[in-house]
Amino acid sequence: MTKEQLVSFFSNEFPQADFIIDSVGEKSATIRKKISHDHLRPGGTVSGPVLMEMADAALYVAILSEIGLVALAVTTNLNINFLRKPSSQKDIIARCNLIKVGKSLVIGDVSIYSDGFDEPVAHAVGTYAIPPARKA
Amino acid sequence: MTKEQLVSFFSNEFPQADFIIDSVGEKSATIRKKISHDHLRPGGTVSGPVLMEMADAALYVAILSEIGLVALAVTTNLNINFLRKPSSQKDIIARCNLIKVGKSLVIGDVSIYSDGFDEPVAHAVGTYAIPPARKA
Amino acid sequence: MTKEQLVSFFSNEFPQADFIIDSVGEKSATIRKKISHDHLRPGGTVSGPVLMEMADAALYVAILSEIGLVALAVTTNLNINFLRKPSSQKDIIARCNLIKVGKSLVIGDVSIYSDGFDEPVAHAVGTYAIPPARKA
Amino acid sequence: MTKEQLVSFFSNEFPQADFIIDSVGEKSATIRKKISHDHLRPGGTVSGPVLMEMADAALYVAILSEIGLVALAVTTNLNINFLRKPSSQKDIIARCNLIKVGKSLVIGDVSIYSDGFDEPVAHAVGTYAIPPARKA
Repeated sequence: MTKEQLVSFFSNEFPQADFIIDSVGEKSATIRKKISHDHLRPGGTVSGPVLMEMADAALYVAILSEIGLVALAVTTNLNINFLRKPSSQKDIIARCNLIKVGKSLVIGDVSIYSDGFDEPVAHAVGTYAIPPARKA
Repeated sequence: MTKEQLVSFFSNEFPQADFIIDSVGEKSATIRKKISHDHLRPGGTVSGPVLMEMADAALYVAILSEIGLVALAVTTNLNINFLRKPSSQKDIIARCNLIKVGKSLVIGDVSIYSDGFDEPVAHAVGTYAIPPARKA
Repeated sequence: MTKEQLVSFFSNEFPQADFIIDSVGEKSATIRKKISHDHLRPGGTVSGPVLMEMADAALYVAILSEIGLVALAVTTNLNINFLRKPSSQKDIIARCNLIKVGKSLVIGDVSIYSDGFDEPVAHAVGTYAIPPARKA
Repeated sequence: MTKEQLVSFFSNEFPQADFIIDSVGEKSATIRKKISHDHLRPGGTVSGPVLMEMADAALYVAILSEIGLVALAVTTNLNINFLRKPSSQKDIIARCNLIKVGKSLVIGDVSIYSDGFDEPVAHAVGTYAIPPARKA
């Protein structure tokens, strides 16, 4: 799927999805989220759940890009390590690479950044189950 | 800390925290979240990030209850397995038990339920780092 | 499957499996390993890989006990937290409870102990994929 | 630390460590293990615990290479996804990159291969705790 098709899919099917698709590629995707006051925690940092949500969303975008519109693909496992304090002033960027695209399970890793910084603020690995209906 | 002290802490320090503390006990806590349209995903289920947020919050409540107000305790790792489709009609309940309370790391597991059901919709294990300032 | 059937299966199919099945029950299993010099690390503790192996094995025993002899069931994910220093003088005990038994994925958690102690030395959560051949 | 210093350290301190250090670099290490009959599982594949052990060992080598001889550094968390069936005929290679080197926690990811293949057989992320004695 192209980036344009994915953007259209999310605006129709997930109007509540609050991120921007920066790019999609070979088994990969990069998404971005504008950070506002609602996403912050005491100490002026971005909340952990926002980073988890971005990890999950980046995986989903990479999977759709790779295997097409599987709206019912579901996360079965997500493991996330929080590495550094994100900036409250910068967008959050999540870059996913799929490391296995199987018939029933797809696994990817996600590096999450504050825009403009080299070192990740978090790193996640997640698994999606692909429903058998996909084969139809 | 008592439940009342924790409720007061969250209303003052985390006004954006959108959950109810049901109970706290010996190295444990149970919290609840009302599910509304914003928390749903296509297919009438609760979104994964809502469950991740509840896992993280239940851990934080159990930790504060056990070791006192450590506002700067931070999640370092969260691993979550999604087990069953949550009901869109029921509150989400998260029950945390701390399995290690160390000087610098606290680890707990969290079972997450749709209210009224016996089988969990998700299960998480998470680690918080406790800042050295706690010792002061 | 009964404990006796499992013991027979492991002695025939996994002669290299170096653990004892203590008990199996409703979606659960407990196994035990004698600790010898080969399993130790500097400082007189049991090596992490021994604990990981026991977590994986306890899951496998609980799965076979629940769904029958699925020799080709394979681990897809294992997450382990190391909590306390195990005793070099005691058996290692691993107790698994299955938290989801699905058609294609089975998930369980495992608490690992030094025999005779109340507090676990490690805690793991793992997922096995069940091959479709099972349905035949 | 150089590769030669690490090789000497392991032969003195961990004589039971059964792997070869291929290379160490900037926050990274690659190790190799010869696969023999003891490491196999039914179906002619390498056992999961061998891969877990290699993930843990590659992390430890990368950490020692980066911060010096901290014999008492201990694994606190390891999350591993098994991706493809390893070859029973090839060495197992584990490549670790450290993604955070903090004062008390070091986190790295590890890709594990059957020698000569491009696609990993497993992927792990692990955390080591560094004891305060390091600062002495």
